[in-house]
Amino acid sequence: MSETHEDDAPQDHDQKGSYVTAGSEFRRDMTYIPDRITRDARDGWPVEAGRYRLIAARACPWANRTLIARRLLGLEEAISVGMPGPTHDKRSWTFDLDEGGRDPVLGYERLQEAYFARFPDYPRGITVPALVDIPTRSVVTNDFSQITLDLATEWAPLHREGAPDLYPEALRAEIDELNDWMLHRVNNGVYKAGFAGTQEAYESAYGELWDALDVLEERLADRRYLMGPAITEADVRLFPTLVRFDAVYYAHFKANRQPLFTMPNLWGYLKDLFQTPGFGDTVDFRQIKEHYYVVQTDINPTQVVPVGPSLERFLEPHGRDGLPTDTWGPGGTAPLPPLAAEVVDPANTPLHLTGR
Amino acid sequence: MSETHEDDAPQDHDQKGSYVTAGSEFRRDMTYIPDRITRDARDGWPVEAGRYRLIAARACPWANRTLIARRLLGLEEAISVGMPGPTHDKRSWTFDLDEGGRDPVLGYERLQEAYFARFPDYPRGITVPALVDIPTRSVVTNDFSQITLDLATEWAPLHREGAPDLYPEALRAEIDELNDWMLHRVNNGVYKAGFAGTQEAYESAYGELWDALDVLEERLADRRYLMGPAITEADVRLFPTLVRFDAVYYAHFKANRQPLFTMPNLWGYLKDLFQTPGFGDTVDFRQIKEHYYVVQTDINPTQVVPVGPSLERFLEPHGRDGLPTDTWGPGGTAPLPPLAAEVVDPANTPLHLTGR
Repeated sequence: MSETHEDDAPQDHDQKGSYVTAGSEFRRDMTYIPDRITRDARDGWPVEAGRYRLIAARACPWANRTLIARRLLGLEEAISVGMPGPTHDKRSWTFDLDEGGRDPVLGYERLQEAYFARFPDYPRGITVPALVDIPTRSVVTNDFSQITLDLATEWAPLHREGAPDLYPEALRAEIDELNDWMLHRVNNGVYKAGFAGTQEAYESAYGELWDALDVLEERLADRRYLMGPAITEADVRLFPTLVRFDAVYYAHFKANRQPLFTMPNLWGYLKDLFQTPGFGDTVDFRQIKEHYYVVQTDINPTQVVPVGPSLERFLEPHGRDGLPTDTWGPGGTAPLPPLAAEVVDPANTPLHLTGR
Repeated sequence: MSETHEDDAPQDHDQKGSYVTAGSEFRRDMTYIPDRITRDARDGWPVEAGRYRLIAARACPWANRTLIARRLLGLEEAISVGMPGPTHDKRSWTFDLDEGGRDPVLGYERLQEAYFARFPDYPRGITVPALVDIPTRSVVTNDFSQITLDLATEWAPLHREGAPDLYPEALRAEIDELNDWMLHRVNNGVYKAGFAGTQEAYESAYGELWDALDVLEERLADRRYLMGPAITEADVRLFPTLVRFDAVYYAHFKANRQPLFTMPNLWGYLKDLFQTPGFGDTVDFRQIKEHYYVVQTDINPTQVVPVGPSLERFLEPHGRDGLPTDTWGPGGTAPLPPLAAEVVDPANTPLHLTGR
């Protein structure tokens, strides 16, 4: 667990629970538990239905990716999910939404118990997403960038019929390059703006972020999805950031050149994905807003959560049908509705969802 | 100075410099220095060119009203203006923008000196706008609601040729009623949302504010200005709040059901006024943003000031020309450009202003 990744990560606060360091730009802790769950079990963790539990708070954009991938790939029966509530203290995510305040499968009150079960002195942030080995109730990995790639590839034997190929071999180099660029400029770019400890660091992050959004706006002018006519891993990564943009990042992180809904291509793209099974049905706007506005007291000491913005806009026509389209790729089909137990509270989404 | 006004006021922080009181709704201190400057000098203060100095920070919406009224009525030569900078400490407004950090006429570093010159133990907030008697360098009044009414009526002998009648006798009852309603719901409504110390108080203020904005949106559907075809005191009072809305209140005060630019009538009305001499030329967006984001550390402890939103939108066509129009009233004309010394820094406004 000492490998250093070049990319950024969801370990966004220090051990004192601070997000902003005065006088300093924001830097993520970039070290994760690098174990992988693979078909050859090279790290000791075989792909196996029912063995692992995905802990993925709906509030968190990095966890949101895994919920989307699991939906698109039809891994809901193979990998169960535990969902911490949106708010937490310095000891990180808790299972406060579950009956008795404990995850019904792991029996834990706090996600850190799964980390400590494996590493008693675990020194870093307790982050979601995390995959937990159910038999030992121990964390396997929290390496969010690798998790979705492995769901798309290593877990293929357990994919649903008609699952899309989210990481096609022919496109991997380009997807990797785009993902890396988006990670720094956009996915983590909003955090760099919001957690900046100086005006200068903020303005630099703001500039980088908006330059990147302008590039994406242009890219999406003639492509239905980031890589072309079909949904890929790149879309799974961009969507959770965009869907939080106007609700949180615009104001709370001061990413406010303009609301995303005034960027025609990005907004059409976002609405399109939001209305696609597996994307919008993973999004709980109340949990998202509560997380940022209640937990990050460095930025919002009053902990008041905004009522707005209104969400009806997400259901308006997206106007993207005229672009070359092969949404699920060759032989692919849309995923089934979410499991009944995982349907988002209707009060927290503009979608009218029914579960299976 | 013990008279209690029923309306709210710009005394928005307590003596400790706090804006938000945890567990409590926001309530303004409603007591002002009630002296009036009148033609009959009934309070000892006669209307007299060159005798008084208006202290009016560009940042402050309550002061902004007086700058607009002074422009529209052509009182620039009769009443000079001192402009404190946008940020201040617990001891309130300072003349930090002036050479040597002192108001060139009064010689003061801080506005509080003018208050203490008259009331050595002045116990309340040091607020703008304030009218200061130049011979005694003492504050006369800070009663912002009365100041603009008196500029419109008592100061008539010194108005420019073609000055509008901002407070026509026949409309006074209706203007007063509208102003009082707007004060509580809109002008101070945004503060009640932003300074709420509980989620409940915030949500209540948010609901009242947006209900009121919906009423105004409707009212402006067939009226060019709030009272009809001509500009009045009511427009002078609404404009400073609306012009700050998307730049500050939407995010900083969480008044975020939707940006104002998505309300067709309110936004057209705002653009229309912004592009009218005497309104937009009083607005300094940089000072406005710095004031709220730097001073109100209860809400924005990082003191980082947002770069956005982009301002070009204010210069787009307003589309209000087709409504019944008599902007300056019978015999009225538009004001001259601002005095050269009072032109807003071009970097802080989308307008390209030249002064006289």
